[in-house]
Amino acid sequence: MKEFTPTKKRYLEVRKLTEDLCKPLNEEDLTIQPIEDVSPPKWHLAHTTWFFETFILIPHYHNYKVFNENFNYIFNSYYENKGKRILKANRGNMSRPSAQEVFDYRKYIDAKIIEVIEKDYFDIPKIGFFLELGLNHEQQHQELLVTDIKYILGNNPLLPAYNKPFEMNEYSQDDTYTSFKEGIYEVGHGSENFFFDNERPRHKTYLHSYKIMNRLVTNSEYLEFIKDGSYSNFNLWLSDGWAWLNNIKISKPLYWHEIDGEWHYYTLSGLRRIDPNAPVTHISFYEAEAFARWAGKRLPTEQEWEVAASELANCQNANLLNLDKLQPVNKSNKNNQFIGDVWEWTNSSYLPYPNYKKDDGALGEYNGKFMINQMVLRGGSCATPVDHVRITYRNFFQTDKRWQFTGIRLAENG
Amino acid sequence: MKEFTPTKKRYLEVRKLTEDLCKPLNEEDLTIQPIEDVSPPKWHLAHTTWFFETFILIPHYHNYKVFNENFNYIFNSYYENKGKRILKANRGNMSRPSAQEVFDYRKYIDAKIIEVIEKDYFDIPKIGFFLELGLNHEQQHQELLVTDIKYILGNNPLLPAYNKPFEMNEYSQDDTYTSFKEGIYEVGHGSENFFFDNERPRHKTYLHSYKIMNRLVTNSEYLEFIKDGSYSNFNLWLSDGWAWLNNIKISKPLYWHEIDGEWHYYTLSGLRRIDPNAPVTHISFYEAEAFARWAGKRLPTEQEWEVAASELANCQNANLLNLDKLQPVNKSNKNNQFIGDVWEWTNSSYLPYPNYKKDDGALGEYNGKFMINQMVLRGGSCATPVDHVRITYRNFFQTDKRWQFTGIRLAENG
Amino acid sequence: MKEFTPTKKRYLEVRKLTEDLCKPLNEEDLTIQPIEDVSPPKWHLAHTTWFFETFILIPHYHNYKVFNENFNYIFNSYYENKGKRILKANRGNMSRPSAQEVFDYRKYIDAKIIEVIEKDYFDIPKIGFFLELGLNHEQQHQELLVTDIKYILGNNPLLPAYNKPFEMNEYSQDDTYTSFKEGIYEVGHGSENFFFDNERPRHKTYLHSYKIMNRLVTNSEYLEFIKDGSYSNFNLWLSDGWAWLNNIKISKPLYWHEIDGEWHYYTLSGLRRIDPNAPVTHISFYEAEAFARWAGKRLPTEQEWEVAASELANCQNANLLNLDKLQPVNKSNKNNQFIGDVWEWTNSSYLPYPNYKKDDGALGEYNGKFMINQMVLRGGSCATPVDHVRITYRNFFQTDKRWQFTGIRLAENG
Amino acid sequence: MKEFTPTKKRYLEVRKLTEDLCKPLNEEDLTIQPIEDVSPPKWHLAHTTWFFETFILIPHYHNYKVFNENFNYIFNSYYENKGKRILKANRGNMSRPSAQEVFDYRKYIDAKIIEVIEKDYFDIPKIGFFLELGLNHEQQHQELLVTDIKYILGNNPLLPAYNKPFEMNEYSQDDTYTSFKEGIYEVGHGSENFFFDNERPRHKTYLHSYKIMNRLVTNSEYLEFIKDGSYSNFNLWLSDGWAWLNNIKISKPLYWHEIDGEWHYYTLSGLRRIDPNAPVTHISFYEAEAFARWAGKRLPTEQEWEVAASELANCQNANLLNLDKLQPVNKSNKNNQFIGDVWEWTNSSYLPYPNYKKDDGALGEYNGKFMINQMVLRGGSCATPVDHVRITYRNFFQTDKRWQFTGIRLAENG
Repeated sequence: MKEFTPTKKRYLEVRKLTEDLCKPLNEEDLTIQPIEDVSPPKWHLAHTTWFFETFILIPHYHNYKVFNENFNYIFNSYYENKGKRILKANRGNMSRPSAQEVFDYRKYIDAKIIEVIEKDYFDIPKIGFFLELGLNHEQQHQELLVTDIKYILGNNPLLPAYNKPFEMNEYSQDDTYTSFKEGIYEVGHGSENFFFDNERPRHKTYLHSYKIMNRLVTNSEYLEFIKDGSYSNFNLWLSDGWAWLNNIKISKPLYWHEIDGEWHYYTLSGLRRIDPNAPVTHISFYEAEAFARWAGKRLPTEQEWEVAASELANCQNANLLNLDKLQPVNKSNKNNQFIGDVWEWTNSSYLPYPNYKKDDGALGEYNGKFMINQMVLRGGSCATPVDHVRITYRNFFQTDKRWQFTGIRLAENG
Repeated sequence: MKEFTPTKKRYLEVRKLTEDLCKPLNEEDLTIQPIEDVSPPKWHLAHTTWFFETFILIPHYHNYKVFNENFNYIFNSYYENKGKRILKANRGNMSRPSAQEVFDYRKYIDAKIIEVIEKDYFDIPKIGFFLELGLNHEQQHQELLVTDIKYILGNNPLLPAYNKPFEMNEYSQDDTYTSFKEGIYEVGHGSENFFFDNERPRHKTYLHSYKIMNRLVTNSEYLEFIKDGSYSNFNLWLSDGWAWLNNIKISKPLYWHEIDGEWHYYTLSGLRRIDPNAPVTHISFYEAEAFARWAGKRLPTEQEWEVAASELANCQNANLLNLDKLQPVNKSNKNNQFIGDVWEWTNSSYLPYPNYKKDDGALGEYNGKFMINQMVLRGGSCATPVDHVRITYRNFFQTDKRWQFTGIRLAENG
Repeated sequence: MKEFTPTKKRYLEVRKLTEDLCKPLNEEDLTIQPIEDVSPPKWHLAHTTWFFETFILIPHYHNYKVFNENFNYIFNSYYENKGKRILKANRGNMSRPSAQEVFDYRKYIDAKIIEVIEKDYFDIPKIGFFLELGLNHEQQHQELLVTDIKYILGNNPLLPAYNKPFEMNEYSQDDTYTSFKEGIYEVGHGSENFFFDNERPRHKTYLHSYKIMNRLVTNSEYLEFIKDGSYSNFNLWLSDGWAWLNNIKISKPLYWHEIDGEWHYYTLSGLRRIDPNAPVTHISFYEAEAFARWAGKRLPTEQEWEVAASELANCQNANLLNLDKLQPVNKSNKNNQFIGDVWEWTNSSYLPYPNYKKDDGALGEYNGKFMINQMVLRGGSCATPVDHVRITYRNFFQTDKRWQFTGIRLAENG
Repeated sequence: MKEFTPTKKRYLEVRKLTEDLCKPLNEEDLTIQPIEDVSPPKWHLAHTTWFFETFILIPHYHNYKVFNENFNYIFNSYYENKGKRILKANRGNMSRPSAQEVFDYRKYIDAKIIEVIEKDYFDIPKIGFFLELGLNHEQQHQELLVTDIKYILGNNPLLPAYNKPFEMNEYSQDDTYTSFKEGIYEVGHGSENFFFDNERPRHKTYLHSYKIMNRLVTNSEYLEFIKDGSYSNFNLWLSDGWAWLNNIKISKPLYWHEIDGEWHYYTLSGLRRIDPNAPVTHISFYEAEAFARWAGKRLPTEQEWEVAASELANCQNANLLNLDKLQPVNKSNKNNQFIGDVWEWTNSSYLPYPNYKKDDGALGEYNGKFMINQMVLRGGSCATPVDHVRITYRNFFQTDKRWQFTGIRLAENG
């Protein structure tokens, strides 16, 4: 593995973006946790900082003085190897430390990490990797910040706006499928750039002939699915999905509101009419899978997706994290939406690749221990930092999760 | 019923105390709701204001313009007659309106209510009563503010302090019981002062001879109960209480911490060693009732308590809401603790008095609809506003509640 | 206390009735537990037997050989002093011991107890009392057998009948109230006959003038309450009751079915049209209390009920446990329904009488430990054994229970 | 697809085995449902019969008269296309129909189905397939009968035996691994024999080199895992598994009891010391996966398992359903345990094969709608009917299930 050595500039840019994302929020927005999946923005600000303190400063910085002994308990997320921590559901019950203290914490850690970078600690084994991991980790939390902020505001009866509305470009609809032939393909991360362990090793896989859509499913298409009574047609649903939707009474995507017979949704710039040509988003795997069945298609596997994206993805104008947007947009001629806009549910379970090796200790907790009962999503979303996603990137969520920017690309047998 | 006409001075004083109580808090403290029983301080600030808006301004103020149409949905507590409202458990999920908006809301309403008082709207039937009710309602929420703030801070791993420590006066222990003879007594509210409907009518009741303690049970006495293994001796507990404590693993009062073999508790001035002579507090009815059994005594009924307090209560130096204390204190010679310090669990269920009449509509929802499955507490606590409590006052909580300042006075058959 | 000495004849009669009640059942009916409140009939058969074994034979019978060492674990109900036991909810998971083994167990114990009676063990202190307690205990379980059998069959989609339909006598409606004057009355058990400790001591109480109805509320009256939209009118309900009925979607008494616009109910002789003049039954305290409010009346207190019944109750033709009926019947001229038909909800919490003493050890667990969060019912029902109930008898259930034969008698201020 | 035409002889044999399995049970055993996963044996007897009635007699038998109109509601399992049904958790609350009625139901249906077979209805499209499907369906329920009976008896404090103990053959331990080379393999059902749709189509897959163990993991090996503190070492567990075991306090396989320091387990012939060389069974996927990690190995994928079994499986003496055993046995030289003994957890999610087609309507509900959040198990167990399992057979359960005969075969990278 090549040793990574992030520059001070890159470090500061990533750290700044996290804080920029929180600028439109008041202290109250930073603090609450309306559902267990959503963490308080203040917690993200502190946890990403704790990550650098815990994995770099405490083990490697000479005579390091911990900022606050209690923070390990409050800001550890799920690293059993790093000790006890508050229950995830209690993150929103922490009015202290205050936002100000958390920003002070960030400053304190940043100063120390800059020292590490400037004083060239890079002879310490793996320190460059951990720095880079810390930045990638923070980028993952930037995406969660966006989706958690959206939930915090979108769940509020006042539906407050976070940014300004932007104008949607014109849409050029074309509904074509690209075919791929049966045979052996290679998937997985193979370059020298940064990767997460779950993307490795690059390996051969056998695919049967298939076709894949050159864009994402739109709101207007999804509306047809709704109007066709699909949420009450059990034949379209997996058994677990049918139980799920009847249990919590789901009949539309998250954030959709029917007001006087017109469909609206909450976006980060406020409530607006749904844009018919924009990709549908905030749907569960169950809904994506049922939509595909209704449409007479299916979801692609993650291997099919990766092989197709490797060949087809045009990343020009990819709609990734941009503080002025944060909403999926219409397909353009230049962009087939493989990268950005919405995470695309695949019909693949999140499992280890052949010859995958889980690291020991806390690092091994990063990805490996989650490889069960989750489905893989690919491609990044309008909330993913620009230099964070790649074609081999494997995201994963449980089948009922909807607060991420999730959507649908269809496939069919070739 | 005498018509009430609160003065501007009194109105402003009550309203100011609510805001004073929130001064030591930051915006985050104002916002969170760590358990369903606890409401965010911001919610209390707004709900008490909503009460004046809903019951006085909207029906009676000419051409009244509602401050914000959404606030009825967000700040109605439990008045079915006043429309839908967010679930109680979601109060802590409201980062908006911000604290600043809530303070603006208070100013807006205060200006209008002052107008009502100054322009002498008192020919409107019952408006004086509703003003006085609004102030008494706000005083009840002042008490809840104290207990909810205590939970918000005392539940935080950092255990932050709210006020400064104060010195406990010396204690003069005397453990005497006063006897009362069998016979007919009168209880209930009979004067022309303000009252809640549940205190009425004043009526005769038959009591059997009994004795009642002249002070509250102390921490050192409660510690003996703990050390005697009482939390694992089923014979001391009501069946429901035994199930309750085994289910949630209770073995000490709320806020108690055993640190290196020494007992401490969280107070609003921070963590400190328990004061052996101060009244035990933050215990459930189950614990109070089991303690009494362990001590070979029993809890008094509410009638026994009221008859005794009518004769014995020395309210000099009563330890009621005082921003510099907010903690029960030792008994002094002048004060037998009937009023203030802690709410005293009685062995009486909260039920209507003979000939009680529940009002129609929203007003009838104030007290009457809660008359089931709760126990009566008497006497006020160190968090009760000074002019709010009286000997006939009936407080009530479910048997498992511990976040109020609750305590024990013993009785026995005479 | 007078020493009790039940005769062999009485012992055998009580024991036989329990078995007679089970005759119409098959092994499967004897075994299941469709809800936690309902115990399997087989469990009742064994538990009542375990009671004699545990409280009489094990401590007092010389060289007693326990029938099966495991039965204490399986058939102890709630006596913490008698060791561990299976969770109540698991009683229906015991296919073994088989019904046959349980009947063998009964025979084994009966033979030994008869010996105790015949060989005159009555110089052992309290043994007569425990024998009599065992018989009264068994009679309580006979009532539970009837209500549990009704639930087992009435919850089955096949709605199988247990006995044959009987013809309802003609009804003589008269809707009068009897007045009682304000003053001191005596209530509680005072004779030398058997009693439960919760009925003692007889004591003075002060009542305000009141009126009480001379019959029970009927199905047709209750139907008016339903038709008036009462199940969706929050102003009629206690707050807890409103939450309860919305949570589990209650809109009619237990066992009622609306079939093609006609109201039916399941009775132990099968499904039939509701009889308009028979007393309404299988309603919760919440429903009884709301009905009374709707009718402009209230429920009586247990003291009011007892004073009235002492004067008025005409027990001729009381409709108590009769294998050919087991359903409340119309009021006749001779019977004002104070005794039998349905247990009457009072607005009194189940709490100790003045100077009540809870016994030590297992015996103290019989009644005292349940004195919280339950309401008192009076008068016995069509499932209560004939010689078991009396005017001072205090039954008690939680406010949401409906599987007992529960009903309503109205009262009002005098 | 070849048309299937089961003979009368085969039909009667399969049907008889189901009844034979129930012979050692009493009516009570036939009726109860101690946990939701376990269905009452009576329910299995009726549901398998309902399957023939619903899919063959009702649509195809001329003038068919339904046995009992209510049975569709009671005995439909999960076929949404066949109407409403009782909740799965309520199956154990059905004391009626009685066991006798269910056996009568079986006779009634058998007579009609024999007519169908004898009168040669086989020109009706798919009727042969449905008959064969009905028999395979019944065989699946035979396996469930064994595991459910084991739970019903093994959960009972009396631990009653179902059959007689048998002697375990001597064990020949050899711990070898067989290697497979990287390359393209074929998996899936390809012959003309009966199959379930989830086994199709046969297709190519790419495997990386791997090794697979020639026997199952034994109790003594699993005991080492326990003794090594593995149930409290979070590094061995998937995150969900760690939460699961801490939530329900798991520290050993289902049915294991530590008695006076010695490990025993409940078998269908009663409680006995664990046999060190027999395969460990009644473990969840989480436990299987953690064991493999502890052993420095991994679980095979279902493709790896199938390729290996195709080459290696020696089915001589396969320990499949045998009323005299019903317990996994030691490996012999002739049998490497691929078939029989225990279902082997693989690390493959239950998902559709490439080009899988789900049938329309009720038939499509048989397998396809369960393809989410379950893991594949292979090889059959000691409770699988002899002619029911095959190398391509895909069984599937959620990751926390333990009441099936489940076990472990290890693999490693080649």
